[in-house]
Amino acid sequence: MQAKTPGASRTIMTDLVLPSETNPLNNLFGGELLARMDRAASIAARRHSRRIVVTASVNHVAFNRAVPLGSVVTVEAAVSRSFKSSMEVFIDVWIEDRENGSRTKANEAIYTFVAVDETGRPVEVPALAPETKLEKLRFEAALRRKQLSLVLAGKMKPDEATELKALFT
Amino acid sequence: MQAKTPGASRTIMTDLVLPSETNPLNNLFGGELLARMDRAASIAARRHSRRIVVTASVNHVAFNRAVPLGSVVTVEAAVSRSFKSSMEVFIDVWIEDRENGSRTKANEAIYTFVAVDETGRPVEVPALAPETKLEKLRFEAALRRKQLSLVLAGKMKPDEATELKALFT
Amino acid sequence: MQAKTPGASRTIMTDLVLPSETNPLNNLFGGELLARMDRAASIAARRHSRRIVVTASVNHVAFNRAVPLGSVVTVEAAVSRSFKSSMEVFIDVWIEDRENGSRTKANEAIYTFVAVDETGRPVEVPALAPETKLEKLRFEAALRRKQLSLVLAGKMKPDEATELKALFT
Amino acid sequence: MQAKTPGASRTIMTDLVLPSETNPLNNLFGGELLARMDRAASIAARRHSRRIVVTASVNHVAFNRAVPLGSVVTVEAAVSRSFKSSMEVFIDVWIEDRENGSRTKANEAIYTFVAVDETGRPVEVPALAPETKLEKLRFEAALRRKQLSLVLAGKMKPDEATELKALFT
Amino acid sequence: MQAKTPGASRTIMTDLVLPSETNPLNNLFGGELLARMDRAASIAARRHSRRIVVTASVNHVAFNRAVPLGSVVTVEAAVSRSFKSSMEVFIDVWIEDRENGSRTKANEAIYTFVAVDETGRPVEVPALAPETKLEKLRFEAALRRKQLSLVLAGKMKPDEATELKALFT
Amino acid sequence: MQAKTPGASRTIMTDLVLPSETNPLNNLFGGELLARMDRAASIAARRHSRRIVVTASVNHVAFNRAVPLGSVVTVEAAVSRSFKSSMEVFIDVWIEDRENGSRTKANEAIYTFVAVDETGRPVEVPALAPETKLEKLRFEAALRRKQLSLVLAGKMKPDEATELKALFT
Repeated sequence: MQAKTPGASRTIMTDLVLPSETNPLNNLFGGELLARMDRAASIAARRHSRRIVVTASVNHVAFNRAVPLGSVVTVEAAVSRSFKSSMEVFIDVWIEDRENGSRTKANEAIYTFVAVDETGRPVEVPALAPETKLEKLRFEAALRRKQLSLVLAGKMKPDEATELKALFT
Repeated sequence: MQAKTPGASRTIMTDLVLPSETNPLNNLFGGELLARMDRAASIAARRHSRRIVVTASVNHVAFNRAVPLGSVVTVEAAVSRSFKSSMEVFIDVWIEDRENGSRTKANEAIYTFVAVDETGRPVEVPALAPETKLEKLRFEAALRRKQLSLVLAGKMKPDEATELKALFT
Repeated sequence: MQAKTPGASRTIMTDLVLPSETNPLNNLFGGELLARMDRAASIAARRHSRRIVVTASVNHVAFNRAVPLGSVVTVEAAVSRSFKSSMEVFIDVWIEDRENGSRTKANEAIYTFVAVDETGRPVEVPALAPETKLEKLRFEAALRRKQLSLVLAGKMKPDEATELKALFT
Repeated sequence: MQAKTPGASRTIMTDLVLPSETNPLNNLFGGELLARMDRAASIAARRHSRRIVVTASVNHVAFNRAVPLGSVVTVEAAVSRSFKSSMEVFIDVWIEDRENGSRTKANEAIYTFVAVDETGRPVEVPALAPETKLEKLRFEAALRRKQLSLVLAGKMKPDEATELKALFT
Repeated sequence: MQAKTPGASRTIMTDLVLPSETNPLNNLFGGELLARMDRAASIAARRHSRRIVVTASVNHVAFNRAVPLGSVVTVEAAVSRSFKSSMEVFIDVWIEDRENGSRTKANEAIYTFVAVDETGRPVEVPALAPETKLEKLRFEAALRRKQLSLVLAGKMKPDEATELKALFT
Repeated sequence: MQAKTPGASRTIMTDLVLPSETNPLNNLFGGELLARMDRAASIAARRHSRRIVVTASVNHVAFNRAVPLGSVVTVEAAVSRSFKSSMEVFIDVWIEDRENGSRTKANEAIYTFVAVDETGRPVEVPALAPETKLEKLRFEAALRRKQLSLVLAGKMKPDEATELKALFT
């Protein structure tokens, strides 16, 4: 299988914040944003693999900035690294000022998907070939995140997580 | 106000077709697609005008191609012409083959929006400056559509619809 | 097949405008109304044909009057003309004043549906036999609309659209 | 206040059974039907009273007949009796055979609403003037139901429920 | 089949009141609460029977107390008595004060479910063995309610409803 | 403010997996589960703080086990540690076998919430007093997770994350 660029899976989902999606402070519910990011990220993973994909995990997501009712929200997702049958997808969320049109970063998130066949069995996916400087940074950090995820799940000993150890020692 | 290009309002909404949005043939409901196009087009009109916008009319929309459950659908909207306080928005809808990634045009539609202030009163919007060949074609045809809409609403005599008359005589 | 009257397909859908269906001005979203009209009109087309029906096109729809949150909205749909396997459905939308009960026309729309069998292939539908004066007017205008739709889709030369030409010359 | 007929409040809500509204046997969920009946009945109560109305109680509802996915369902509601500030609304639910168009009674239900002002305080409503034989039967039975409801709520002694007692003794 | 306690089927559904579920007074819609109660009660009936269950009827439900937007609502359901293939489920609804955490009873309701096999045919269910004083009270009253329901449906003569008669004579 | 136990905030949300919430393999969408967990966890945080709460972050969430259509899913959330104005909430998700009633752990997740006043400004929350062995384990691990989150956000130097360093060295 030929490697693919992040651009080949980039998915843009621009939509409004409707009244039914807000919390008591009139901002977008965390849960609704998590659901939108999951849909956009699953499309990116599908574009990379051309397969059925299922959500395997969600990495640390920070909600730094409230997204008010009526906002225009853009969720942008692209595969940041692929492993044997799994893909890490990086998601950037932007909100847009109605009056001057300026875009502000609302938050970012990282989801992992697994490509499967019709019976749900994992299948291999293409490698990722990052192009821009940001894409390369995210590609490299993905390995640390994968080790962290394995350590937290008890599937790798902290001692074997060479990339992580380097961070703390 | 300075004229804006269609690119400045272009809005991309890529999303899945979920089970709750299908008809008895397992294809996307016409009504659900009309609603998505309305949301995307209203964002485009808002980006052009930087104002609150309300749907004024929907032009002829043809559903040429069924959109099956599970499809990735991309709704792409951009302002095609603006008048005093109204904007015509052209919408292209694409579906994407999961296996080979090819995009097929599913249908197109034209919506008209009016920009209003907080009290609902119409306000002026910037002119449109089309750039590509397609954008220019759509810009020109918009005048005929506006005349047609005025004639059908009984607000213009067929005789005064110079652009339309030229088409039939 | 025996011809049917518009009354035989008339469909009435009275419902509330709920908070989740409103825009920033607290009025019913254009997209939500388009979806309701599609559901009501598809029932009318089904009643006329006793078949599975799919939305083929939406004609010019004008949103003349905002429909505020909490309104009672009645969508009334009936087949206005049938062709070989397609049906034009005329839709009238009314809102009702809570205090004095008076009904106001909010807008009207025209949708076209095609009757199909289980495999999606078009099947023949009964003719329409209009009865009232309004039904007859709509029946006659349907032919002009059909020609207009064919011309706009590039499937008929303006020159052959005899009904339309008569309008402009 | 002048009395009103049941016809003056009659509300018809015809709609489809969508995939998202079905249970594991592919029939309409009881809960979804209860919600639709509540919306239709609240409109009937509003038409009778021209006031804000809130659901006060739901009487015995029997689900005699399953409503399959894709059905056309008609919910028909009309006020069957009014008391000082409350209204009993009778609801009939019909499903329609797609192929031969015959209508079958799926179930019936009785809801009670109270008319209130903007602060939620009960306000008086017009009396009901039944016209047809069925309307008169329902009007009379409403008093027994009201007593039953008061007895069950512990607000009336069984001994004082003269209409009910007559039924059992 | 071994009898089961109400505790074995007890189902707790705690959730928020979202903006899309409110009426014009900003309280939870009656219809939405009816739907939530149906979902919780159907889980309780399923836990008791380990079968597919369908809603058979809803007994008298009183909405004594409005549930405001943003409330935390707990729906608690447990089987209160079982008959051959049907189960009566008792539902208590509580709302919780955000500031002092006190719980208030908002309303109660009684639903009846029938256990069926994959073809929709009724199947037998275990008996119920009430334990607490409240469970025993509800168990006993269930028989009266069953008779009442049969009488109202015209399937039992008032004269044969021994439990009911005792109430009024 | 007096410390509270995890039991005081424990929130149970049992509900069905409906057809509209499934992916192409007929299992619950990751995004829908993320949204339900957010709602349950926000109620737990509210019960601990008696304040308005907003989602601050989502920690690593693993979807180990698919949740099929029609499943009964229980989301159980309780505060696992509180800091000055933030609370870590631990969420366990269980699915239940319809036939034998056995419960299986489907996945777990950790969300963080911040308590705020009506203007959105952070306010102090009570301390957490863990009681069971599991509650104490989660309480202790919460500090490592907080450091990890600060390191990943660039707000703490790896060198200062004493709890984390101990893990890798």
